[in-house]
Amino acid sequence: MFEKVKSMSAPELQISQWFNTKTPPTLAGLRGKVVILEAFQMLCPGCVMHGLPLAQRVRSAFSESAVEVIGLHTVFEHHAAMTPVSLEAFLHEYRITFPVGVDAAGDGASPKTMTAFQMRGTPSMLLIDKFGELRAHHFGEVSELLLGAEIATLIKEQTPETEALELAPLVGQTCSTEGCR
Amino acid sequence: MFEKVKSMSAPELQISQWFNTKTPPTLAGLRGKVVILEAFQMLCPGCVMHGLPLAQRVRSAFSESAVEVIGLHTVFEHHAAMTPVSLEAFLHEYRITFPVGVDAAGDGASPKTMTAFQMRGTPSMLLIDKFGELRAHHFGEVSELLLGAEIATLIKEQTPETEALELAPLVGQTCSTEGCR
Amino acid sequence: MFEKVKSMSAPELQISQWFNTKTPPTLAGLRGKVVILEAFQMLCPGCVMHGLPLAQRVRSAFSESAVEVIGLHTVFEHHAAMTPVSLEAFLHEYRITFPVGVDAAGDGASPKTMTAFQMRGTPSMLLIDKFGELRAHHFGEVSELLLGAEIATLIKEQTPETEALELAPLVGQTCSTEGCR
Amino acid sequence: MFEKVKSMSAPELQISQWFNTKTPPTLAGLRGKVVILEAFQMLCPGCVMHGLPLAQRVRSAFSESAVEVIGLHTVFEHHAAMTPVSLEAFLHEYRITFPVGVDAAGDGASPKTMTAFQMRGTPSMLLIDKFGELRAHHFGEVSELLLGAEIATLIKEQTPETEALELAPLVGQTCSTEGCR
Repeated sequence: MFEKVKSMSAPELQISQWFNTKTPPTLAGLRGKVVILEAFQMLCPGCVMHGLPLAQRVRSAFSESAVEVIGLHTVFEHHAAMTPVSLEAFLHEYRITFPVGVDAAGDGASPKTMTAFQMRGTPSMLLIDKFGELRAHHFGEVSELLLGAEIATLIKEQTPETEALELAPLVGQTCSTEGCR
Repeated sequence: MFEKVKSMSAPELQISQWFNTKTPPTLAGLRGKVVILEAFQMLCPGCVMHGLPLAQRVRSAFSESAVEVIGLHTVFEHHAAMTPVSLEAFLHEYRITFPVGVDAAGDGASPKTMTAFQMRGTPSMLLIDKFGELRAHHFGEVSELLLGAEIATLIKEQTPETEALELAPLVGQTCSTEGCR
Repeated sequence: MFEKVKSMSAPELQISQWFNTKTPPTLAGLRGKVVILEAFQMLCPGCVMHGLPLAQRVRSAFSESAVEVIGLHTVFEHHAAMTPVSLEAFLHEYRITFPVGVDAAGDGASPKTMTAFQMRGTPSMLLIDKFGELRAHHFGEVSELLLGAEIATLIKEQTPETEALELAPLVGQTCSTEGCR
Repeated sequence: MFEKVKSMSAPELQISQWFNTKTPPTLAGLRGKVVILEAFQMLCPGCVMHGLPLAQRVRSAFSESAVEVIGLHTVFEHHAAMTPVSLEAFLHEYRITFPVGVDAAGDGASPKTMTAFQMRGTPSMLLIDKFGELRAHHFGEVSELLLGAEIATLIKEQTPETEALELAPLVGQTCSTEGCR
């Protein structure tokens, strides 16, 4: 479902452990680039079938000088089943090479970055513009044509905008606090 | 394969018969809109499996005020098998509702618009900007992310540009003078 | 939907024209072999996407000494759009190489063999055993596991049986007198 | 690749922990039923995409009185990443409900049942007949038509046979000691 995004500065990532990167990225340090944040759980079928492959296609399609793709492991259920040890093997077997950060554990079930962005579940794809504003927030499956359109729009912007980008994703397979379906 | 497109005014369509439209479109009359021209043959498997469904997704994804999608039936082989009578039934059964024009017969095997655009075969997707310039020419399968990016770029342009848009489609299933594969 | 098949001798094919065979087959002449009859219309999307590819997989999977696959072009709508000239080009482009017969025109919209078998529409797949009995009749999509099970069962039979084989296909995309959907 | 199976009694399963069953099955106790043993690793992409969904389709297609489907978690790499805790969550999220046994750890990397069956990697699907003989052993992707044919053949047998069933699966995505690809 499409999250109507009010003008919102994207909160900084809160990560307990990084994979696939020697220099852990921060949103503050990525000003000037469009950031695609793909939130997933390694045991979420919709993430494995759709969300992560889409994030990989985004990584292949757009130049690294313009777009940064970051995975965020937002474990909010089955915590003992999706530890960083399992995540590391998962990233290896599924050939995921972009930086992936383990979202820092929160007080409740949901981790900190997930809560800060008010994510509904996984997979969630968030688009942050070159000026650090959150401009789109997609829960579930995403229309690739419109995603490509959004990314091109954000790449081309020369001055800050706050308008949310319109997109109508299909919900498809998702995991939320009501379970995975 | 990606056609490196030199700066080229898109030649006007040469159509012998239209379907799905009471007021036949012309490129000259579509200035101010981005035009997606999908060239296909109804018996070309790559068109049926990929090209036409993609054109339909473009039609659904983008506003009719900004983007026009036009099908072009570019029959260059099996002419007697793909007459307008068969085409009409094909469009009905495959629920294709955007305007479709029958490319006017040429002197040789290839029809006139196909020749004027120097198309290599089918499916071919051509992107014409708001000022009538041909800005991208794709033969075979197309990356949906990059296609969405191209379309957004063309929608946003306020002044004429001539630079070709970069895209690297997979060739996939195509039909050319060497046959369909 | 599954057609509960009463014990029924399969009626002989009534064909006006054959493709892909120098010696036109008859059911009478195919005693001793299991016959898979795939009824289709070249402009029926469910046939192009599912029925015909499945028939091709059956042809590849089972020995020609045990199983005969025959296509039957059962045109019951858009007659002028699906003539043998168009069919021939369709078979060429879609690489269909098993024998295909044009079902002989009937008095009404439906052709003769289609009527004799009481087919509901396309795609329809009929299984005829080694003794000429119709043993299964599937309209729409078919479970490949259960189809393989049916075919193996019919191959192994040494004496005539009349019991219908149970199978629960998904209807999927079909064309019937109510239209294609 | 197709494993040419010599006449071989299927060795008994060696399991350290069961899921989805109150009464752990044994091959000895399953005489009279055809047993489909699906060997997988939860982080093996070919298992998640092909092997396990196929096993689920086999479970749905054939009667429980004739066919038993058992999953075998044959972890031979990334042992710490695929513990029973993670496996349990995986089975829950992927809605796998047939009995799944954790293959007992061996002396080396490969677990005991995997070694006893001389499996090459995952996914592997083994067909054991009603008399306890191993009759087919498939590594990688499997033709569904021929699998259905094999299962029907084994269901129908009334007396013991030892002939291996012929099948030519596509290898597709697999994991072996040389890695996953």
